[in-house]
Amino acid sequence: MPTRRANAPKGHRAAPDCGTLRRLKPDTSRTVYDGRLFDVTLERWGEHEREIVEHPGAVAVVAVDREGMVALVRQRREAARKELLELPAGTLEGEEQPLESARRELAEETGLTGGTWRELAAFYTTPGFCRERMHLFAAEGVEHGSASPEADEELELVRWPVHDIADRLGEIEDAKTLAGLLLYLRETV
Amino acid sequence: MPTRRANAPKGHRAAPDCGTLRRLKPDTSRTVYDGRLFDVTLERWGEHEREIVEHPGAVAVVAVDREGMVALVRQRREAARKELLELPAGTLEGEEQPLESARRELAEETGLTGGTWRELAAFYTTPGFCRERMHLFAAEGVEHGSASPEADEELELVRWPVHDIADRLGEIEDAKTLAGLLLYLRETV
Repeated sequence: MPTRRANAPKGHRAAPDCGTLRRLKPDTSRTVYDGRLFDVTLERWGEHEREIVEHPGAVAVVAVDREGMVALVRQRREAARKELLELPAGTLEGEEQPLESARRELAEETGLTGGTWRELAAFYTTPGFCRERMHLFAAEGVEHGSASPEADEELELVRWPVHDIADRLGEIEDAKTLAGLLLYLRETV
Repeated sequence: MPTRRANAPKGHRAAPDCGTLRRLKPDTSRTVYDGRLFDVTLERWGEHEREIVEHPGAVAVVAVDREGMVALVRQRREAARKELLELPAGTLEGEEQPLESARRELAEETGLTGGTWRELAAFYTTPGFCRERMHLFAAEGVEHGSASPEADEELELVRWPVHDIADRLGEIEDAKTLAGLLLYLRETV
């Protein structure tokens, strides 16, 4: 999951359209940090201020091949100071639709393509301070090919039998991966 | 069980031992944004830069009372531009230990105290760009009291029967809450 921003606009993005809950907007909003990978916005909401990491949105995939193996990627996570085992995932680029982005990220990171896709869930990763909304997909019957990760990604593809997932959740230290695998198990196994 | 490396040319490092946490550190690191709620650090790792949101860590609680009701809080999430239904949660303060912090946050946000506690998991919420590590607890048999939320928190306590959780996961749009409820169901129901 590259953390760079590719074609995402620098300015404020509209919140994604996702449901029937009450719409809200700040009194004022200004960019207080214009970063390389993300910006930070300071918003005023009545008496309170909110400092928010701008993010274009993201995707993650529970991809299972015809042998019943789920694909994970092990990668160096500088923010965590360690390597983590995660679902293939990435950031929405430009005007990409989530499903299109998810197929692209899965192919780039693992070489897996094809299969039957469905959306498992959509959620905010850290709604207390970040705009990131993630779309989570399941892809079943995917086929193996050649990966082509980003230059700054060092990925190791790891395959687990789906039926081992439940016993190996303790090896997962990433929120989207826990949520994704658990949702998949609940619906499938 | 690693099967193959995804990017052969760049992956010259040795594969990590399974389950061993290889410690890593950047070549250089500097604060590029000194914020009100969080800072941003720019780290250099060889040829690559990483922009990282600094975060002290966090806690979340699946709290179930003696009537078998799980406690959720509905609150305005400015970053999401809507209200979300989430597990009681909060940020580690000072030298607080995670369990101590979780008990404090639960009491402040919901008035619930006591009960039998255990840690369900610990995970990074967004390891691609943020340091936040979250400790997730289950607290069973908690007792009702008076809440005392922060001045800038507008919280509504929502109670669901534990046995309704599985059918209502579609109402949850927050990663930690999905992961927490699913882990709890898996271990308990």
